[in-house]
Amino acid sequence: MSEKMQQIVLASRPDGAPVAENFRLESAAPPQPGEGEVLVKLHYMSLDPYMRGRMDDAKSYAAPVPIGGRMEAGGVGEVIASNSPHFEVGDFAFGMFGWASHGCLPAKELRKLDPKMGPITAALGVLGMPGFTGWHGLSAYGRPQAGETLVVAAATGPVGSMVGQLAKQAGLRVIGIAGGADKCKLAVETFGFDACLDHRAYADARGLRADLKEACPKGIDIYFENVGGKVLEAVLPMMNPHGRIPVCGMISWYNAGGLGAGATDVGLTGPGLWRNILVKFLSVNGFVISNHFDRYPDFLKEVGPMVAKGEVRFIEDIAEGLENAPAAFMSMLNGGNTGKQIVKLV
Amino acid sequence: MSEKMQQIVLASRPDGAPVAENFRLESAAPPQPGEGEVLVKLHYMSLDPYMRGRMDDAKSYAAPVPIGGRMEAGGVGEVIASNSPHFEVGDFAFGMFGWASHGCLPAKELRKLDPKMGPITAALGVLGMPGFTGWHGLSAYGRPQAGETLVVAAATGPVGSMVGQLAKQAGLRVIGIAGGADKCKLAVETFGFDACLDHRAYADARGLRADLKEACPKGIDIYFENVGGKVLEAVLPMMNPHGRIPVCGMISWYNAGGLGAGATDVGLTGPGLWRNILVKFLSVNGFVISNHFDRYPDFLKEVGPMVAKGEVRFIEDIAEGLENAPAAFMSMLNGGNTGKQIVKLV
Repeated sequence: MSEKMQQIVLASRPDGAPVAENFRLESAAPPQPGEGEVLVKLHYMSLDPYMRGRMDDAKSYAAPVPIGGRMEAGGVGEVIASNSPHFEVGDFAFGMFGWASHGCLPAKELRKLDPKMGPITAALGVLGMPGFTGWHGLSAYGRPQAGETLVVAAATGPVGSMVGQLAKQAGLRVIGIAGGADKCKLAVETFGFDACLDHRAYADARGLRADLKEACPKGIDIYFENVGGKVLEAVLPMMNPHGRIPVCGMISWYNAGGLGAGATDVGLTGPGLWRNILVKFLSVNGFVISNHFDRYPDFLKEVGPMVAKGEVRFIEDIAEGLENAPAAFMSMLNGGNTGKQIVKLV
Repeated sequence: MSEKMQQIVLASRPDGAPVAENFRLESAAPPQPGEGEVLVKLHYMSLDPYMRGRMDDAKSYAAPVPIGGRMEAGGVGEVIASNSPHFEVGDFAFGMFGWASHGCLPAKELRKLDPKMGPITAALGVLGMPGFTGWHGLSAYGRPQAGETLVVAAATGPVGSMVGQLAKQAGLRVIGIAGGADKCKLAVETFGFDACLDHRAYADARGLRADLKEACPKGIDIYFENVGGKVLEAVLPMMNPHGRIPVCGMISWYNAGGLGAGATDVGLTGPGLWRNILVKFLSVNGFVISNHFDRYPDFLKEVGPMVAKGEVRFIEDIAEGLENAPAAFMSMLNGGNTGKQIVKLV
């Protein structure tokens, strides 16, 4: 292929919050599709909080990105060469191509997209991993019942907004937490949350909890956990007996050096957390969506039509150009995005 | 009735570990059975770690014992008067009579015992709340699979020994943790554990973890939690992906003032605990057995015959006299008992 390829690699591991020097833009040899492989020119790539974890070499559920290795990401684009009978030039596909302008993957690792069914970016957010994460976590571990109260943070993000909208449709009272008055307004007006609190307005968990108590007069039955930190500390004592906490992330702690020595929230001790689990009979389940792809067809079948009909809405925040991906990523970790963070590549 | 009655009441709330002055032995008016009630002369009463929680006024799943109120306990004894068609004088029964020589309860709150089926003390331990706790927690939340590895502390206690024996029968590798070499020997020789480590031999979680790694070469799939503290800290990083942690108690922390400010294990931070749940996809379930009495008949049906045939063994530690109950209780909280702690009353 004569197409020139660019990619972003991990130049060094971050010490706390990532900085520009941790990333490096490189030109790479144009990839050549092998037997059964497909070459895709990427139009959009996804930025997600989990990528922060891959930058550390702490033991986790996935191997870290090696120094000099390409940053991981899902992306969508157009097939420009194919050695597979399952894809033709001009088809659109989703795959885990990384932070790059082009990528080669075996056809069986790709999912074909139909651009007539809606914007292909949906495969990165509302109908991709984040939306699927919200749907699976809520249904498998949250087990929502009409009349209950649910709290979710990052309420306008692609996971939180999916969780909140599905819970509203199931008849729950839904309270969001988000960063800033604009996002709170969005959570209520666009996504239909009953209320949304601005975590930036509270110096500590105590203040947030006081207002949460007003917003949740019957306590909290489901806390969908994606942030940790101050929000978790505020919510935990408010959980009702037999409450459920699906745990898919803890973004507020991702820059805390793997949560090693010194990186603690003084208000949230291990024993205090454990005691709440015991005396409230909580069910707490950690999960990563990549272990549950067997449910993905069910998700698409259920939620796809809801998105098409506008019953589940979504918002995208689109940065321009691969070279701007690191800045968009660093901003996202501080809540600088509104809605699903995407990078437009062409 | 002309029978004289004695009881032990909560004289004051403990500050840390209970002391003798927190308890007071009293003579009480002989109880009179009302309509539908039964008067029982108690032969044995149970001492259990949960009673420590009831002595604090911290919010928990059960109301605290009021100052001057009778300490709670299950007991077994003989009916000496009955205003119910369901019980006759001379019948034996189990009920929540408290720390007392006699008690009156409605017949529907009592369970009739057949002394021909085995020692009536079994209703306090192996076939009572502790045994039922182990069976329910293991089956409902532990979900054991042959070939997996389970760790349980207080291994010779009535909960731990039930969990360990049931897990062995299900084909698991079972590692106990207990206080002292004698108890460790008992866990292996009497209860059939594959190995048992003496937590007193380790100054901190690090040393305990090193030996646990040798005892659990394939990691830990189920940690049945009844102690918290050093054991939890040692176990947590060894949990395998998709591990399960039923949480029924945390005795090592019960004397830590309700785990409020200042009462923390420095090695076990809230964020560190939470991160393990996330990255190992753990399923953590707090429970108290009193919410699950609907399963009690199933438990008796399954485990009763195993006890009768000696397939599930049990050990009792019997103190003599109601006046010695406080000392036996305080000793039990420090692991001074071997097997189910009971007080003989007549």
